[in-house]
Amino acid sequence: MDRAALFEQIKLKNSCLCIGLDTDLSKIPKHLLSLSDPVFEFNKQIIDATHTYCVAYKPNVAFYEALGPKGWESLQKTLDYIPKEIFTIADAKRGDIGNTASLYAKAFFEQMNFDAITVAPYMGEDSVTPFLFKNKWVILLAHTSNAGSKDFQLIESASTGRKLFEEVILQSQRWATSDQLMYVVGATHGEQIGGIRALAPEHFFLVPGIGAQGGDLEMVMKHGMSKQCGLLINSSRAIIYASNGNDFAIRAGEEALTVRNNMKRYMNTSL
Amino acid sequence: MDRAALFEQIKLKNSCLCIGLDTDLSKIPKHLLSLSDPVFEFNKQIIDATHTYCVAYKPNVAFYEALGPKGWESLQKTLDYIPKEIFTIADAKRGDIGNTASLYAKAFFEQMNFDAITVAPYMGEDSVTPFLFKNKWVILLAHTSNAGSKDFQLIESASTGRKLFEEVILQSQRWATSDQLMYVVGATHGEQIGGIRALAPEHFFLVPGIGAQGGDLEMVMKHGMSKQCGLLINSSRAIIYASNGNDFAIRAGEEALTVRNNMKRYMNTSL
Repeated sequence: MDRAALFEQIKLKNSCLCIGLDTDLSKIPKHLLSLSDPVFEFNKQIIDATHTYCVAYKPNVAFYEALGPKGWESLQKTLDYIPKEIFTIADAKRGDIGNTASLYAKAFFEQMNFDAITVAPYMGEDSVTPFLFKNKWVILLAHTSNAGSKDFQLIESASTGRKLFEEVILQSQRWATSDQLMYVVGATHGEQIGGIRALAPEHFFLVPGIGAQGGDLEMVMKHGMSKQCGLLINSSRAIIYASNGNDFAIRAGEEALTVRNNMKRYMNTSL
Repeated sequence: MDRAALFEQIKLKNSCLCIGLDTDLSKIPKHLLSLSDPVFEFNKQIIDATHTYCVAYKPNVAFYEALGPKGWESLQKTLDYIPKEIFTIADAKRGDIGNTASLYAKAFFEQMNFDAITVAPYMGEDSVTPFLFKNKWVILLAHTSNAGSKDFQLIESASTGRKLFEEVILQSQRWATSDQLMYVVGATHGEQIGGIRALAPEHFFLVPGIGAQGGDLEMVMKHGMSKQCGLLINSSRAIIYASNGNDFAIRAGEEALTVRNNMKRYMNTSL
């Protein structure tokens, strides 16, 4: 999917919501467990209930990989079920060199046909460029939302004075355009997101950390939006596990609508 | 496997060779392709021919993942076939937060029973500690062997004067002992390996980059060995693709023996 199509969806839905499909057998409603593919059944009902309020789905690949071959089948079925106009992100955080990276790219972009994959920057340019496919996206970890993000991402370079995550954002702009590259910027650094936006005025940011991790939606949208919105704000657990009863899909839909309505308030003022 | 058992193998075999099972359907001998599981058949014959000369096998997970569910089955069969006294490394370069990292750890350590997994450090402590299982190992990317390793790993911290990869090595020693943690240090930085050894006198280093990538075995062993060897030196393509004819396993065995004999020369002098 290209940038124009993604922006169209954002305007149409007044939403930049990405829903994380971190589907965990120990957390989904018990009544699904007797079905032949409980993971897919859960995802299908979540997608049915939420797809009009979100513009992207992001399965975290670990949750599927942990289930072995059956998990990969559930992932493929989920991907096939997501409506074509919705952006799909394989949250895989891969990062390896040339030939290996190419294999990962083929697995997620050709065999599975995701629109985007998350990639770790530690190994540098030749671990990122193999993921540059036409109309596909690399989403590079920049400033993540977890506690450990402070351990290395904030190290300040002696030669440039910039933090490591800022170096990642600036150097990687030499490798790919803003039509191929997005950045992960955690909502838990809400107050800094304006400064990060200044480093990459046109790039989309994938923003985890609202909801369960406590990031502030208003702060992120006020300071992080670009001219074309430029945000995909992710919520996983707060939406998909809003209830673990028979009403799980209904409650997920309600939660997604609530988040989308909050987004709409800030969206209208700028787009 | 614990450190003592690994060191025993190294002394017994006079070898610190790790063989990378980067098995690629486009590179293995054509006559294997008609079999029901060509990847496993190739690995099986490579293992039969090389296991007396090496102390570790390292399948790069990408090569298996790229084949879908069937690839995971080939990986599991390969792991089950490796003799129990040989150390096994899932080269997966994973790096994700708490609950997701735990899922990866369970997949590779419990479902599959690898001894070790490679992990990327960019997300910090809470992306590494979930991999700390009893008698299992985290092998953290420090200074990798690829060209892009210079992009971020060499950034010098304004506050400590140390390079990013040195920060990774020093900070991570607060998270785990040298009985749980190893580092990836590329052979292509041969001249620097003595300095890196000084930062982590007792840790094992997994050293990729000899063979196809051109690193120097002598330099690595002279400057990188610890009191308990402390090195697992990896070779993948130069051994497993030594021939693509009917003699591929024989040639792989010969290559492995040659590398092991070179290792033995430097090994004898210090252990």
